Amino acid sequence: MDNKKIHISIFGGGNVATHLIKAFLKQPSIQLQQVYNRHIDKIKSFTHQTEITDNLKDIRPADIFILALTDDAIAGFSKKLSTFDTLTVHTSGSTNINALQTQRKGVFYPFQTFSKDKEVDFRQIPILVEAQNQDDLQILKNLAQKLSAHVIVADSNQRKALHVAGVFAANFVNHLYLQAAKILEENKLDFDLLKPLIMEVAHKIEQLHPKTAQTGPAIRNDQKTIEMHLKFLKNPEQKELYRILTQSIQKTYSHE
Amino acid sequence: MDNKKIHISIFGGGNVATHLIKAFLKQPSIQLQQVYNRHIDKIKSFTHQTEITDNLKDIRPADIFILALTDDAIAGFSKKLSTFDTLTVHTSGSTNINALQTQRKGVFYPFQTFSKDKEVDFRQIPILVEAQNQDDLQILKNLAQKLSAHVIVADSNQRKALHVAGVFAANFVNHLYLQAAKILEENKLDFDLLKPLIMEVAHKIEQLHPKTAQTGPAIRNDQKTIEMHLKFLKNPEQKELYRILTQSIQKTYSHE
Repeated sequence: MDNKKIHISIFGGGNVATHLIKAFLKQPSIQLQQVYNRHIDKIKSFTHQTEITDNLKDIRPADIFILALTDDAIAGFSKKLSTFDTLTVHTSGSTNINALQTQRKGVFYPFQTFSKDKEVDFRQIPILVEAQNQDDLQILKNLAQKLSAHVIVADSNQRKALHVAGVFAANFVNHLYLQAAKILEENKLDFDLLKPLIMEVAHKIEQLHPKTAQTGPAIRNDQKTIEMHLKFLKNPEQKELYRILTQSIQKTYSHE
Repeated sequence: MDNKKIHISIFGGGNVATHLIKAFLKQPSIQLQQVYNRHIDKIKSFTHQTEITDNLKDIRPADIFILALTDDAIAGFSKKLSTFDTLTVHTSGSTNINALQTQRKGVFYPFQTFSKDKEVDFRQIPILVEAQNQDDLQILKNLAQKLSAHVIVADSNQRKALHVAGVFAANFVNHLYLQAAKILEENKLDFDLLKPLIMEVAHKIEQLHPKTAQTGPAIRNDQKTIEMHLKFLKNPEQKELYRILTQSIQKTYSHE
């Protein structure tokens, strides 16, 4: 065992696990010791690069166990590792550190949407770490800094805040893209027409706070255009979203 | 008068007017004949590059008059040009072509949010054109193609659809960015943390339709996380937006 390397074992075979495995395999200072998954098929592609297993009895102590599991599975699965004194972390945004039933607990939360087939650049992805004492925190910071340029120490509440904020900025935003796409398609226009605008709006907040970046009929209190848009929209779902988001924008800026 | 050049006069001094003036001045095949604005101060910076005026009596016929005015001003102002048989266009997304009171009417709608201080690349901006006959339409297509690689012939209804879609994909999206920023700031986290995710979500729809790109607790029907997020959000405004957008996502995918 090469003592200079950080020895990691990963538990899980989903998107987060897969991306972490790939990232760790590229790091010469990290030894990916074992990968465990209940269904061996999902991790079989790593056979020649690391030791894979579907049997918990094979698991040996390491510097860090990473549980890249669904939120609901974390507590129950961690119990099975309670005999180890290996620092054990989960990778969940919305799960408290105390959900872990292991002796040493921590969190290693890479904040990004992972798709199985899309490569990610870990240097750009913020990683939030949490631990129960300074020594373990230092171990996690060391590991995170090998992958990312943006390592943040955050408690469970802050991690939850980032997760909720991500739902607004990613899932809800994507849902609005979908409404826009539907409106265009119903009117025989290509969704491609919107792409330059979408990129412009995303780029804008690199320089401007979204509070300052707002434009459009709602912030201008252009009631005539708002009424015309509401009349134009036939889909009750879209009508309601338009009304509520317009009201919310108007409320935000009416106090100024 | 050089007959090979398209002769344009622009009326207006706002963001759209300013960006069009700058773009036309760069085109050797376009002659920017005159720029009119009620307040001469707003167009004074173009003194050495074109003829500027605040007096309608100075206006001479051209190939195209471009009225880059607010929606409400279009009809009234166009009346003052009714003696000209110059093809006259407005630049509005949500105004019917028939709002114009001129002899020859058209629309020249560059689809983008313009900020005064930010340069735009017109080649990437879709321009929607409309006219009352094929000859005038051809004149507008010629002009639009000199600026943009994406020229689309669209009627007033399609233009309105694109404008409404833009409100969803730009103004409402930016409002969700703002909610995310507020949630982070209240929890002493930097808004910068979200920027890689925001760019990733915007880039994703270049390859995937937003219908396919959706992720998160709502589409997974992860009721436990949704409840936890709603409990976490203290601001009633954010609570309502979270609830309604989550419901809307769930409705969208429940029929499958």
